[in-house]
Amino acid sequence: MFYPNNIKKQYKRNISHKNRGMDLESIINTTNSYYLHENKAVIYKKTTPIGVVDVNYEKGSKIIKKAYFKMPSTLDYNGLYRSKYIEFDAKETLNKTSFPLSNIHPHQLEHIKNILIHGGIVFLIIKMNNLYYYLKGEDLTEFVNLNKRKSIPYSYVKEKCYNIKESINPNLDYLKIIDKIYFTEE
Amino acid sequence: MFYPNNIKKQYKRNISHKNRGMDLESIINTTNSYYLHENKAVIYKKTTPIGVVDVNYEKGSKIIKKAYFKMPSTLDYNGLYRSKYIEFDAKETLNKTSFPLSNIHPHQLEHIKNILIHGGIVFLIIKMNNLYYYLKGEDLTEFVNLNKRKSIPYSYVKEKCYNIKESINPNLDYLKIIDKIYFTEE
Repeated sequence: MFYPNNIKKQYKRNISHKNRGMDLESIINTTNSYYLHENKAVIYKKTTPIGVVDVNYEKGSKIIKKAYFKMPSTLDYNGLYRSKYIEFDAKETLNKTSFPLSNIHPHQLEHIKNILIHGGIVFLIIKMNNLYYYLKGEDLTEFVNLNKRKSIPYSYVKEKCYNIKESINPNLDYLKIIDKIYFTEE
Repeated sequence: MFYPNNIKKQYKRNISHKNRGMDLESIINTTNSYYLHENKAVIYKKTTPIGVVDVNYEKGSKIIKKAYFKMPSTLDYNGLYRSKYIEFDAKETLNKTSFPLSNIHPHQLEHIKNILIHGGIVFLIIKMNNLYYYLKGEDLTEFVNLNKRKSIPYSYVKEKCYNIKESINPNLDYLKIIDKIYFTEE
């Protein structure tokens, strides 16, 4: 399964509110394709949930004539790595001083807590100030519990998050961070 | 998250090729809702993948004007139970003597093997002759490897599969089978 990422990358400079996170999605998708082909992990982007309103039959196959995008209540990516359940979301912000928590819906926060309770690995990949950060679900929920702030200051991100290095193959080796956190014998 | 299952159940007797598996889906969905609310497991049905052809903007929100259903390359349900990655599909057949393997696409079979390689739990729930069976991914791939047959004989299903009992809450306690297979100390 290959994604038409090169096409997306051509639009890199055309940043608008609507396209925010687009590039990041391409990077994650090619990374996941690489992991799958190298037999390292099985991680897929979930399909955006839609509500189908109207369906027609054309030449024997169903064609959706009207539908709308639904709000996701889980995170965008999940899968399996070294026998562990993995789930994460990738978020980009143009804000240089803080990461707005409006990026995460209350249902998603609830879901993150559930994954932690049941022993899964859950995290956010945050692109901010042109760097990639791995924010543990544990740290995110702790921040939300202890703070009334509507955004995470960049100083907190720099202190708590793991920096994910960009490379050629894979584009963004976030599993290396998982190895470090969860699979290093002390 | 509750599903409008009672509505679906009213159509129970109206069995057609198109609706095949419909009832089974309701049973699995209510079971998963029960598991989630009882804090037993976090298991969701994946959204059917669609290919969006045309999108309009109406009153500030995106409305899909044309789209089609894509062939899934993974299984319908996945999630997390007792720190384990779980993935499965639910299939119903009206065939009384064998389970047709045409129910499983080659991509899905490849995916099942991948999950096994990476240490996940993967299986099929098969409804056949009004009984519910749990077929281990390991047994399915073994059958496909050793046989040229295009269907699994019912005798094999009865011998190899675990019977899943119907009940009130949850409707179909398939996690009990997982407990038995993967979490029983011998």
